Amino acid sequence: MSLDPQRRFTVAERDAFHALAALRRDCRHFARGAKVAPEQLQRLLAAAHCGPSVGLMQPWRLLRITDASLRAQLVVEVERERTATAAALGEREAEFLRLKVDGVADCAELLALVMPPDDGTVFGRRTLPREMALCSVGAAMQNLWLAARAEHLGMGWVSIFEPVRLVPLLQLPSGAQALGLLCIGPVDEFYAAPMLELEDWRHPRPLHEMIADNHWPQAEESSHAD
Amino acid sequence: MSLDPQRRFTVAERDAFHALAALRRDCRHFARGAKVAPEQLQRLLAAAHCGPSVGLMQPWRLLRITDASLRAQLVVEVERERTATAAALGEREAEFLRLKVDGVADCAELLALVMPPDDGTVFGRRTLPREMALCSVGAAMQNLWLAARAEHLGMGWVSIFEPVRLVPLLQLPSGAQALGLLCIGPVDEFYAAPMLELEDWRHPRPLHEMIADNHWPQAEESSHAD
Repeated sequence: MSLDPQRRFTVAERDAFHALAALRRDCRHFARGAKVAPEQLQRLLAAAHCGPSVGLMQPWRLLRITDASLRAQLVVEVERERTATAAALGEREAEFLRLKVDGVADCAELLALVMPPDDGTVFGRRTLPREMALCSVGAAMQNLWLAARAEHLGMGWVSIFEPVRLVPLLQLPSGAQALGLLCIGPVDEFYAAPMLELEDWRHPRPLHEMIADNHWPQAEESSHAD
Repeated sequence: MSLDPQRRFTVAERDAFHALAALRRDCRHFARGAKVAPEQLQRLLAAAHCGPSVGLMQPWRLLRITDASLRAQLVVEVERERTATAAALGEREAEFLRLKVDGVADCAELLALVMPPDDGTVFGRRTLPREMALCSVGAAMQNLWLAARAEHLGMGWVSIFEPVRLVPLLQLPSGAQALGLLCIGPVDEFYAAPMLELEDWRHPRPLHEMIADNHWPQAEESSHAD
């Protein structure tokens, strides 16, 4: 597909993008037995591929999990870390355990997101090497996420695992690190708001608290984590 | 604006999103003397605000630089790091110095992107705390970047600075870290491909090298950084 680099987007196209951004959800509930068409998956991967990266380093790789026994092993790993997370949460342990925090077992497509060994890129990251690689991964995966929503597919970025334990399962080389298990597939419905908000786990800060002029605001409220 | 959470996107809307993703550029050249309308800036910030974040932690803050003397100090900081980066690049020093690597002085709007002090969120990041915060920042900023392109505005994420030196300039609290200077504004033209590719600085890997089935591929080519 050849596109005019100067292409202007219409107001309707712009508004559709904002709807897409607003309706994208981190999905944990998937429709069982559903499939993602190969051309859909290809479009998702193509969207990730045009993600930005500092110095053009493209610090992500995606492993498509097609082996059912490997997926089953990843399910075990997520379950193991779910238990550990619950324990670390202390008084919110029981509340956490009631949440469905992943769709690894039941999503149509499962992609393991891996950051490859650092390639030594200096451009744009002499001072912030790891930070900029990780921000690049996040930005590229947001393209994939939005592309999924545009296909009416859900995606959940599951990070509830111990990365060291995924090294042998995914046969990762030294220096590579798993950053996510991306669960993708049809959903019965999209959450009306972030699932953690609907479940009263946490409520997001409003926009105005995220912005200030010139300097860090004096009276930044104390944070309210788990 | 009230949206149906189950809204389906049309094929035309989907294709417009893919065009947006493909035509988004990391811009370093801005149209001088141009402005961003307040309602445009508001739409960009709103898009960032619906970015995903692990555990709903929203680990980003944006400082809008409206003070000309502060902007001038940031320009000095970027220039300082540009020199240090050039020296670190060794044999590519002269080639690097010929590139325009930022638009901090001439973009219409300048936002300092800051990661706030860690709020202790455990959900989804017991094992990958910093990684997941940084991926969340990248994902949210990708929303902003795409929203800018939808307005026919350029954006460049400049990370050529020493973050410690920005702490006093932005009056950051302990534990907060600057991650970018986001240069936003009208451009005379969008690059036809990533600027670093057009300038023959680096050529991106093709999509097929980014994907494999189940395990890390045996014959991952050696990387080709700066």
